[in-house]
Amino acid sequence: MENKNKLKRTHTCGELREKDLGKNVVLYGWAESIRLHGGMVFVNLFDRYGTTQLVFSREAIGSKFDEIKSITPHTTLCVSGLVRNRPEEAINKEMPTGSIEVDVEDYVINNIAKPLPIPIGKGIPVYDDVKLKWMPIYLRERKAQQNLILRSKVFNIIMQYFHEHDFIYVETPILAKPTPEGARDFLVPSRIHNGKFYALPQSPQQYKQKLMIAGLDKYYQIAKCFRDEDLRADRQPEFTQLDIEMSWPEPEDIFEIIEGMFKRLFKEIIGIDLKTPFRRMNYEEAMELYGTDKPDLRNPLKISDVSKAFEKTEFSIFKDALKEKGVINAIKVSNNAERFTRKYIDSLATHSKSIKGSGIIVLKIKENNAAEGSIAKHLSEEEISELIKLTNASSNDILLLSAGKKSIVKKTLGSVRLKLGTDLNLVDKDRFELLWITEFPLFEFSETEHRWVYEHHPFTSPEEEYMPILMKLNSLDELKEILPEMLPSDIKSKAYDIVINGWEIGGGSIRIHKRELQEKIFELLGLSREEYLEKFGSLLELLEYGAPPHGGIALGLDRIAAILAKEESIREVIAFPKNKEAQCLMDDSPSEVSQEQLKELGISIINNQNKSK
Amino acid sequence: MENKNKLKRTHTCGELREKDLGKNVVLYGWAESIRLHGGMVFVNLFDRYGTTQLVFSREAIGSKFDEIKSITPHTTLCVSGLVRNRPEEAINKEMPTGSIEVDVEDYVINNIAKPLPIPIGKGIPVYDDVKLKWMPIYLRERKAQQNLILRSKVFNIIMQYFHEHDFIYVETPILAKPTPEGARDFLVPSRIHNGKFYALPQSPQQYKQKLMIAGLDKYYQIAKCFRDEDLRADRQPEFTQLDIEMSWPEPEDIFEIIEGMFKRLFKEIIGIDLKTPFRRMNYEEAMELYGTDKPDLRNPLKISDVSKAFEKTEFSIFKDALKEKGVINAIKVSNNAERFTRKYIDSLATHSKSIKGSGIIVLKIKENNAAEGSIAKHLSEEEISELIKLTNASSNDILLLSAGKKSIVKKTLGSVRLKLGTDLNLVDKDRFELLWITEFPLFEFSETEHRWVYEHHPFTSPEEEYMPILMKLNSLDELKEILPEMLPSDIKSKAYDIVINGWEIGGGSIRIHKRELQEKIFELLGLSREEYLEKFGSLLELLEYGAPPHGGIALGLDRIAAILAKEESIREVIAFPKNKEAQCLMDDSPSEVSQEQLKELGISIINNQNKSK
Repeated sequence: MENKNKLKRTHTCGELREKDLGKNVVLYGWAESIRLHGGMVFVNLFDRYGTTQLVFSREAIGSKFDEIKSITPHTTLCVSGLVRNRPEEAINKEMPTGSIEVDVEDYVINNIAKPLPIPIGKGIPVYDDVKLKWMPIYLRERKAQQNLILRSKVFNIIMQYFHEHDFIYVETPILAKPTPEGARDFLVPSRIHNGKFYALPQSPQQYKQKLMIAGLDKYYQIAKCFRDEDLRADRQPEFTQLDIEMSWPEPEDIFEIIEGMFKRLFKEIIGIDLKTPFRRMNYEEAMELYGTDKPDLRNPLKISDVSKAFEKTEFSIFKDALKEKGVINAIKVSNNAERFTRKYIDSLATHSKSIKGSGIIVLKIKENNAAEGSIAKHLSEEEISELIKLTNASSNDILLLSAGKKSIVKKTLGSVRLKLGTDLNLVDKDRFELLWITEFPLFEFSETEHRWVYEHHPFTSPEEEYMPILMKLNSLDELKEILPEMLPSDIKSKAYDIVINGWEIGGGSIRIHKRELQEKIFELLGLSREEYLEKFGSLLELLEYGAPPHGGIALGLDRIAAILAKEESIREVIAFPKNKEAQCLMDDSPSEVSQEQLKELGISIINNQNKSK
Repeated sequence: MENKNKLKRTHTCGELREKDLGKNVVLYGWAESIRLHGGMVFVNLFDRYGTTQLVFSREAIGSKFDEIKSITPHTTLCVSGLVRNRPEEAINKEMPTGSIEVDVEDYVINNIAKPLPIPIGKGIPVYDDVKLKWMPIYLRERKAQQNLILRSKVFNIIMQYFHEHDFIYVETPILAKPTPEGARDFLVPSRIHNGKFYALPQSPQQYKQKLMIAGLDKYYQIAKCFRDEDLRADRQPEFTQLDIEMSWPEPEDIFEIIEGMFKRLFKEIIGIDLKTPFRRMNYEEAMELYGTDKPDLRNPLKISDVSKAFEKTEFSIFKDALKEKGVINAIKVSNNAERFTRKYIDSLATHSKSIKGSGIIVLKIKENNAAEGSIAKHLSEEEISELIKLTNASSNDILLLSAGKKSIVKKTLGSVRLKLGTDLNLVDKDRFELLWITEFPLFEFSETEHRWVYEHHPFTSPEEEYMPILMKLNSLDELKEILPEMLPSDIKSKAYDIVINGWEIGGGSIRIHKRELQEKIFELLGLSREEYLEKFGSLLELLEYGAPPHGGIALGLDRIAAILAKEESIREVIAFPKNKEAQCLMDDSPSEVSQEQLKELGISIINNQNKSK
């Protein structure tokens, strides 16, 4: 029987120092690196706070010595003993407690550990699936624990910060209304109302707008959100969002509060002073210069438009591109000419193909306005000279050119820019570049659905100047009749994103606060009156009872924590992540349930033969 | 078109005072009590922070005067103007801003409000269903807003408190494994794994135990939990739980940390100094004295055992009760003899019947060891004398007696005690009585299932002294063979509850941290090996890799917020509550979904004709 009652912890395994010499202490923890040496047993006892060396001798613990000799790694112990100096040669300066050790006088074994299923503390990498199955053991890795502690600090700083700024924390429902807003809902069948379903919220968007209508003025929540999407890349079916909404804000009010938060997070978590305000860049400029709406500004490369150099060109690729109202764009790379081997240039072409991009042409600039490369001979001296002028290129610089439809060229060079950043090691991993992208288009054309859809979400307010035009339209097709030069994607909105090092960390907008405009937007998006009343009727009604102007933002907390922890994957900052098949390998969920449960819910399983795994 | 850009808020509606006289200010808010008086329009503009009187005059705003005359209540406005003194006779001392008013120079109407669907700020009660439908409007009630603000403060204090005490905030999954732990799970069909389901967690119990196995030492979370139960009384299908777990704790360690939290909450939220440590009372004593495991100690009445007075009685009811090993218990009521009319005594009998309780006998104590009441004549002088001695009763006191099986008598008098507390106004509503109930039984007999079930949950550790006995049993039935005097309900556990004013606010336990004991408990609860491995296999396996002793508690945050807000119902501290049918009347969820969605999930709807509402 354990008698740990007599052994009340006095210190953690991370805190004993020379000042504690001679103290009688009680420590709890896990045993690691158990060695028999000179007739004594040395054990490193570790806990979340650190590691302390224990020494067990037969003189001190008598008959229990044989037991302790044979304990297994990660056995849990309570020990009491005396803090003493280590012999000079045994001092470990790498270890905060490395100048002392505890001479154990008594101990209790709480639980013997079987041989661990994964190696811990040995720097041996573990397959993802094995890691996910054994998360509670994996979390004994110092770095994994530190990541969760960091995430906890992020939570606390955020809670405190918004509280100090008079925001009200409100919990919104998890059992919500199914109103697909783009992504697929997770559904929850109702037992009391068979045939009806709740949905897990994709975001608390409508709830937070309603809280503004309720007069709460400033709202925040750390909210669980859910999307039933195929988990390409680094996504989770449930994720954590910092959700903010304010009444009567300008975008700048939102930017200011969020910048203050990041300033504090970066300072308190990793000791970095961020300069505020962050850079603002409108969507158009970001697409123009970086071919993306989430530029990584650590990467110094920019895209420039060099069409002007080729207005009279006879080089057919460029000539055709311009004839079809396309563009010719360039990226200039300095100091890396030697990297542009035949093989590397081929890899760029392959890369472009893989993203269905436009062709990449590589030119090397030489002395005296000359250029070298497969197409050099097709270009006139004036063209090369003008190109050098437009790109401000010098001898030995590399120019990567691409011609074609503007959107394709931007996408291609945007992607090539990222590849170059990695391949040529142009990105300083220790830098943080935060910026706001503003004035997103209200609508974008969906290639998959062959129609105009909303870029942010349907509650986003257009910029004031477009409201009169929008109110006149019965459909987006009518736009070209009224303003032939304008595409729906030219209508700017009050939507904005925040980007850190090329990650879209969050996005928000000023919302529509008038029913007639909101209905018009639904109509222009092709929703029938019946459809939008069914989905958004409650919000539309409430807009008529004194809704204030309002707006906000939602930030991905998993990604923010991962960035601060310098981890590539959000899974490293989540305690129990799912795998790419949306399974928890630890407890094997999702799993089967009983027929009685399904019967109560009024549902039955169909066609589960073809996909079940 | 609005030009609110020029009107940037300088103050809230709650902050202007005499010190601000002469300032030009901009306020945002909702209009209420719009009066035309002496050729001017007076409007109270309110926001979450307070109310300020606005004065609109034709001199100042010119042609816009006619517009403002006709605005509707709860129209949203931005106004700019000059802070000035109110005339002496117009000063309103009830209103923090009551000595000033704002002479409006310009304004913008953000949104005209239609006539409100429910009365706000008028003290008119609203039917629950109507309130739930119009929550965002109802939340404009000052008290409703204050309740949410209070809840937000509770969150912040808790976050801060546990952070200061080195607890790590960890989010555990909402998409969890179906493992019914008593209540019914909400299920979420998996699209990727048709035929399989996630469950929404009833509590993060297993996750937090795994976090202790991971070495996190101290964990906390404000967690959403879910139970698909019929919503008797004041329950919600989703609720918020403060979830705590610690490694190597004694129950007193848990008590201490929670007491510190309550001390801070009560002090910072309602200015009350709680004395710590709170009272501890074991389960047995609570049942003995109060007939309940959640006694409201504001109520001064106690139950006492008076069986001893009637050991030789000839009064058949008492005699029979004692013969069948039952008891005779009493409650003494002082200073209220006049309330015990025939009619009131009848109402007590009716009450007892309604809870399937035992009979209530009322005696009035007179001078000289005499008693009055329908049974008085059946009792001997010695019996009455002994009864008076045992209850320490004086002349004019009332004794309520009940005889029968102990559990029924305790339940009856426990319930009668509550009724008396209310009826006789014995409970001081401004007092707070917090206490710990300890040493709950490990097992209780379920009358509905006709078998022994766990009292707390199956992970609860028995008290040390019972472990050897338990390990010897193959079933609970064997207990009577080994220890004939002992019932399974006599086995004490390391489970505890915290009770405030008769509400069970939370409960917890020290957990089992060894696989063999945990398997034994599952076995004694009647689970087959296959069954417990399927449900709890992951936890059982992990117990073998160095699980430390651990324990914790979960507290109902909705109830805590309601108590601090002095609200009877938790719905008053929830922004978007469901009704008793688990519906959100605001957005009409749960609701129907498309056949395509169901097909993707691999489910279909059956028998929805008989229950759908």
